Amino acid sequence: MVGTDERRARLAWAVVLEIGQERASHDPPALCRSIREHGHVGAWHRLVAGELRGADGARARVLQTDVDAELSRVERVGARVVVPGDDEWPDGLADERVEPHVLYLRGTGHLRHVAACAVGVVGSRASTGYGEAVARDLGAGLSSRGWGVVSGAAFGIDAAAHLGALAVGGPGVAVLACGPDQVYPQAHRRLVDEIAQTGVVVTEQPVGRVARRHRFLTRNRLIAALSRCVVVVEAGPRSGSLNTAGWAEALGRPVGAVPGPVTSMASAGCHERISRGEAHLVTDAEDVLRLAAPIGDPDLLAREDVGALGPARDADVLTQHQRQVYDVLAPRRESSVGHIATELALPVTEVLTQLAALQLEGFAAQGESGWVRRHPAGSPHR
Amino acid sequence: MVGTDERRARLAWAVVLEIGQERASHDPPALCRSIREHGHVGAWHRLVAGELRGADGARARVLQTDVDAELSRVERVGARVVVPGDDEWPDGLADERVEPHVLYLRGTGHLRHVAACAVGVVGSRASTGYGEAVARDLGAGLSSRGWGVVSGAAFGIDAAAHLGALAVGGPGVAVLACGPDQVYPQAHRRLVDEIAQTGVVVTEQPVGRVARRHRFLTRNRLIAALSRCVVVVEAGPRSGSLNTAGWAEALGRPVGAVPGPVTSMASAGCHERISRGEAHLVTDAEDVLRLAAPIGDPDLLAREDVGALGPARDADVLTQHQRQVYDVLAPRRESSVGHIATELALPVTEVLTQLAALQLEGFAAQGESGWVRRHPAGSPHR
Repeated sequence: MVGTDERRARLAWAVVLEIGQERASHDPPALCRSIREHGHVGAWHRLVAGELRGADGARARVLQTDVDAELSRVERVGARVVVPGDDEWPDGLADERVEPHVLYLRGTGHLRHVAACAVGVVGSRASTGYGEAVARDLGAGLSSRGWGVVSGAAFGIDAAAHLGALAVGGPGVAVLACGPDQVYPQAHRRLVDEIAQTGVVVTEQPVGRVARRHRFLTRNRLIAALSRCVVVVEAGPRSGSLNTAGWAEALGRPVGAVPGPVTSMASAGCHERISRGEAHLVTDAEDVLRLAAPIGDPDLLAREDVGALGPARDADVLTQHQRQVYDVLAPRRESSVGHIATELALPVTEVLTQLAALQLEGFAAQGESGWVRRHPAGSPHR
Repeated sequence: MVGTDERRARLAWAVVLEIGQERASHDPPALCRSIREHGHVGAWHRLVAGELRGADGARARVLQTDVDAELSRVERVGARVVVPGDDEWPDGLADERVEPHVLYLRGTGHLRHVAACAVGVVGSRASTGYGEAVARDLGAGLSSRGWGVVSGAAFGIDAAAHLGALAVGGPGVAVLACGPDQVYPQAHRRLVDEIAQTGVVVTEQPVGRVARRHRFLTRNRLIAALSRCVVVVEAGPRSGSLNTAGWAEALGRPVGAVPGPVTSMASAGCHERISRGEAHLVTDAEDVLRLAAPIGDPDLLAREDVGALGPARDADVLTQHQRQVYDVLAPRRESSVGHIATELALPVTEVLTQLAALQLEGFAAQGESGWVRRHPAGSPHR
């Protein structure tokens, strides 16, 4: 468990120092440096003791911050606070460039488990009927294969992706640019509440803080960091979703983009990324999962190019976990996900990830009541 | 000029030995080998002298072939025969894998000049309204920039591309899978005749020969060989136009593909090629010309990847011919294409090619009555 001090210090910093706003808020860069060097607790002590030069504004805010009151506010709105070291803290945030002070979570889902096999599906608010239909299909297709859908609950593509996932009952992740008690846009309160019923609503913004333009940009880094890969469904040339794709690229996550009519400006940003080689062209959930969970890749997060994997079809190409799951499967008797998870002492979500990867490449197939082993045909896999 | 014997021998071979059908017609591979080794005249003598083993069938056909009658048949249908060495023989056919025995041409255009800056625009017969609109726009856009459009005069994408080019009066090339007197489909007789009025109708099939499935496949290699690059506008997963793209790839021509809705099977073949890295995503005529005539490439036909050229903007990157044209242009006084051609003793089509490439990258601009020199901005060129 995480020490109480660490949790309280991080909560206080979340209120006092907004990530990405160090410059705009006239707080000295020394604040961030101090956190990096001394950790949240150490920096906190230094700030309160007046040891950080030029940080008088921040110090005044700190002295006014009542951490206990903050904690009860979080509880009152039905949220919880997680920090690094907590079981629910997602692995994808272990990167200095993206780590928030804390995450405020709302919902029944377990964030780390959902994010372990989740895909970011993002796009324009100014979407077309075509783009929304594709986003819904992707959301449903990913969800029905056991994958979570991460998005921003915005109008347009975000909402369509969430709705597609909800339609098949998959736990998803909505990442907000406002406090856990707020919803932006207001019209999506019900959508966000529905996501919380099976999945998780995530934000780094404290209770009461409203959505602002700069918060969408910092929020985008969390969408990218919580996803195995990011898919842009529709994006005009200046769509904010391209910012999310940029974060994904910077974090080494594969980026997919859905093509559309060349006559539609809503697809222009996608086409540009594809033709520059900055995004893979994807047309459906299977294409996306080939990016998110390539067979044979020992480190799913460090992949370079799925296409380069070529037509290898031998079980030798499987990763260790894929191989374990493959070995438990029988060719003719169906095994339930629960059974496999128990056999291997792996979380169900982990088993689902491996099954999805195995199924994609023809090493496993889903039957009426469980999974069977398959021997993939020798033909090239694309 | 080409020797009479060579022309007559090639004409006879065109009647006797259909390229791509050596196996199906029970002719021994020795026939083709003999042509490769001894040339059309030498192989002809050997065949007539009975020196080629197992070629009795071909020899019988040869002895029945009346070359003079064949020549007058060609003349009677308003066609002409060209062979390697003739001024009109296109440079792109100087490749053992694609060289036909002869070409039968019809129309007022000069094939070598038109093909010197031409793009193949191909696609499904089973096209959608979207695909046809894009093909028309591409045909018109390429034509209005002085580029020829090469296609197969088929229903769907082919026809739309030709019509777009005709709409702006550009000389185009229709490559047929039947004799120069035939038209397939019949409904396109008027389209083909219109192409002949300003451009060229091309075939390697003798007078009277009708279109057959295998002839479309061999015809496709000519479309690819007569084009600087080939663009697939719409193609289902098994469309014949992908065969043309395959030929272009084999011949080292860049291949472009137009994306479309992922919900449309008519775009599935395009998406597949793009995502495999076998085609560049193109959305308009400018994208296509970037593939066909990349700035700074010393050998236009040997280019690898336009994208790799990056943001270079200095006139140093120009090819020799581009540089010549650039040097003739004045920054404020407009120069006509005819003037530039005269100054440099270059064909008008060559000047247009270079101007199109210069314009694309901002080194030249078109005014009311001619062209001016420009200094391109320093921004990245895509």
